[in-house]
Amino acid sequence: MAKTKHEDTSGDLSLDRLVFFSDAVFAIAITLLVLEIRVPHLARAASTIDYWQALIELIPSLFAFVLSFLVIGRFWMGHHERYAVLDHFDARLLWPNMLYLMAIAFMPFSTAFLGANLGHFVPALIYNSSMVVLGLLAMWVARTVAVVSGKRDPNGYGLDIVLAGLTCVGLTWIFAPASQVGMMTVPMWSALESRLSRRNGS
Amino acid sequence: MAKTKHEDTSGDLSLDRLVFFSDAVFAIAITLLVLEIRVPHLARAASTIDYWQALIELIPSLFAFVLSFLVIGRFWMGHHERYAVLDHFDARLLWPNMLYLMAIAFMPFSTAFLGANLGHFVPALIYNSSMVVLGLLAMWVARTVAVVSGKRDPNGYGLDIVLAGLTCVGLTWIFAPASQVGMMTVPMWSALESRLSRRNGS
Amino acid sequence: MAKTKHEDTSGDLSLDRLVFFSDAVFAIAITLLVLEIRVPHLARAASTIDYWQALIELIPSLFAFVLSFLVIGRFWMGHHERYAVLDHFDARLLWPNMLYLMAIAFMPFSTAFLGANLGHFVPALIYNSSMVVLGLLAMWVARTVAVVSGKRDPNGYGLDIVLAGLTCVGLTWIFAPASQVGMMTVPMWSALESRLSRRNGS
Amino acid sequence: MAKTKHEDTSGDLSLDRLVFFSDAVFAIAITLLVLEIRVPHLARAASTIDYWQALIELIPSLFAFVLSFLVIGRFWMGHHERYAVLDHFDARLLWPNMLYLMAIAFMPFSTAFLGANLGHFVPALIYNSSMVVLGLLAMWVARTVAVVSGKRDPNGYGLDIVLAGLTCVGLTWIFAPASQVGMMTVPMWSALESRLSRRNGS
Repeated sequence: MAKTKHEDTSGDLSLDRLVFFSDAVFAIAITLLVLEIRVPHLARAASTIDYWQALIELIPSLFAFVLSFLVIGRFWMGHHERYAVLDHFDARLLWPNMLYLMAIAFMPFSTAFLGANLGHFVPALIYNSSMVVLGLLAMWVARTVAVVSGKRDPNGYGLDIVLAGLTCVGLTWIFAPASQVGMMTVPMWSALESRLSRRNGS
Repeated sequence: MAKTKHEDTSGDLSLDRLVFFSDAVFAIAITLLVLEIRVPHLARAASTIDYWQALIELIPSLFAFVLSFLVIGRFWMGHHERYAVLDHFDARLLWPNMLYLMAIAFMPFSTAFLGANLGHFVPALIYNSSMVVLGLLAMWVARTVAVVSGKRDPNGYGLDIVLAGLTCVGLTWIFAPASQVGMMTVPMWSALESRLSRRNGS
Repeated sequence: MAKTKHEDTSGDLSLDRLVFFSDAVFAIAITLLVLEIRVPHLARAASTIDYWQALIELIPSLFAFVLSFLVIGRFWMGHHERYAVLDHFDARLLWPNMLYLMAIAFMPFSTAFLGANLGHFVPALIYNSSMVVLGLLAMWVARTVAVVSGKRDPNGYGLDIVLAGLTCVGLTWIFAPASQVGMMTVPMWSALESRLSRRNGS
Repeated sequence: MAKTKHEDTSGDLSLDRLVFFSDAVFAIAITLLVLEIRVPHLARAASTIDYWQALIELIPSLFAFVLSFLVIGRFWMGHHERYAVLDHFDARLLWPNMLYLMAIAFMPFSTAFLGANLGHFVPALIYNSSMVVLGLLAMWVARTVAVVSGKRDPNGYGLDIVLAGLTCVGLTWIFAPASQVGMMTVPMWSALESRLSRRNGS
């Protein structure tokens, strides 16, 4: 009558592996961020003030760690939400997902480059641009999931994050050291996107 | 009548992914600890005594490795136990869990800082404080799980670990090199917490 | 009559663990690639041009990162596809899979060696040879899966990737800096392999 | 009559997490081994002979990488086999498993120490001793699994690997550079162990 239990399991395992592999890449990228905070090795005679001084010099790295942890964490939540509607594996998911994971795996580099040179134009531009690329690839993944599952997402495909990323890129030219505050425009773009999405839907 | 099997599976997969992602972050953080033990590279003419000398200099790093392995391992067991009562995914779990994982992922840094400068006040203070923050975030996760599952935990939410961490922080001012012995007060605080918890419950 | 449910579950868990362990090794190897891109640390007085210069010097590393991400990603997809036909665990899978994973885990080294010395004969030869070894081990895994599952793969066992790797090895002697373009011959060898495979089948 | 389906699932998830976490630690430890092979960075004018020379100097590291990959891989297979008999989670598994994983996570250090100083007495002694400790902890895990599952393992609990490790330790005093060949005595000790095990059983 219906699919046998065996076929179901087989399909699920393929999807499980894709999801699992993605989760592992997310988890590794997010945890590798900490390796970019250089551990200070002080002389035995170092005073308490020397120690605090060494920690103060790490503030840019710590800021970059926290920022990128939240960014990757947020992207993981988006991936988690998108894939929840899927109930079977489809080979069309493979390449968009793989290229998206490449952008995730690249984050420890752009984070370390930002943290090591905080406030400079080029590292900020690279970081903000990598968020735009990540956002575009996430949209591609989201659209592929929508096509495969046949369910159109009423909240759009993540254009809000791309627009927030572009805001950061724009702010880099104005004031690079604080250009990442552009990420705080996500709610504004979300409201805009869902309004446009609803208009198209009706 | 009841939920269909399909809905169950879908809910489980979302929870599975959250648990899986968390486990992966725990596993990576706990295994990265070893990278902070610097491998000695000795000259070809080095004597056996030189080798033992090089290993003796690693004792602080080895101590920090073992300590943090046990700490992260213990926190993983707590996470494992809390989540065992859950039978469905809830989006309210996402952010407390993510911030808690950030504190776990930070441990390789505080461990390396402690190991590289064992006995000094500032690294000990940072390490002990990071355990307090970890304990507070674990309590937040535990409370969220209790709200989502509707099951109040009769053993409290991990206040014992926070109090033990605070004991370590206090000991840092008295004798920094051995301040981590404060973790050995966990059973005392556990007894206190379960007594208070039972009193509130009745 | 049939296998009991218990036996099924037990068999699945063993297979799940093998697949899971493999996926984790793939995910770690693919994400570790980023650590080989050295983060430039510039002086505070560095100009924007100095920054762009530092990034230009990273192009070989970035090229090696993207190349190996696609190679490992493609091999993961192959592993994913092969194992999808399996419905039970068999101990004969263990060693071929483990040696294949060793070749995957070696990729971050050959990638970093290539990226740090792009255009030179020896790193290109090592990289291209490691792809041939990877391809041969993938074929061994594919054949073992075919034996265990009793399903002969109509598309062959991955000889196309081995032949493309050998093309790269051959090109190393002619023009090492661009020898990896040999990977673009995969479709040609695939067509050849499936033709030979069909002839043998009939 | 029997356990409800819900209880089963809950039990399985706890066991799955333990197994999953263990697999992730195994996978990370085995893949981190590659980071200890130092990538040679040669001058632009370096000749092909310089490159081969640089690779020849890496042979000890490569040997240590292959050896430890096989050792960790073999231990993973043992863990995989032991846990296959379990059908429910038991909290008694937690600590033996965690301490065993600590010994696995330590392997990248002892491997790098061996590879960086191959042929010297102290690194060989540390490496061989760490294998004995690993073997003893594996036996503890195996015995705990036997107690929890109520199934006595007819092939013993891994004493053969401990005895082979002790053989390596003994050989370190005789000829350190080749002391790891002691691992090749595993089949001999296995035969002895299964004979003793059968005599005790009857």
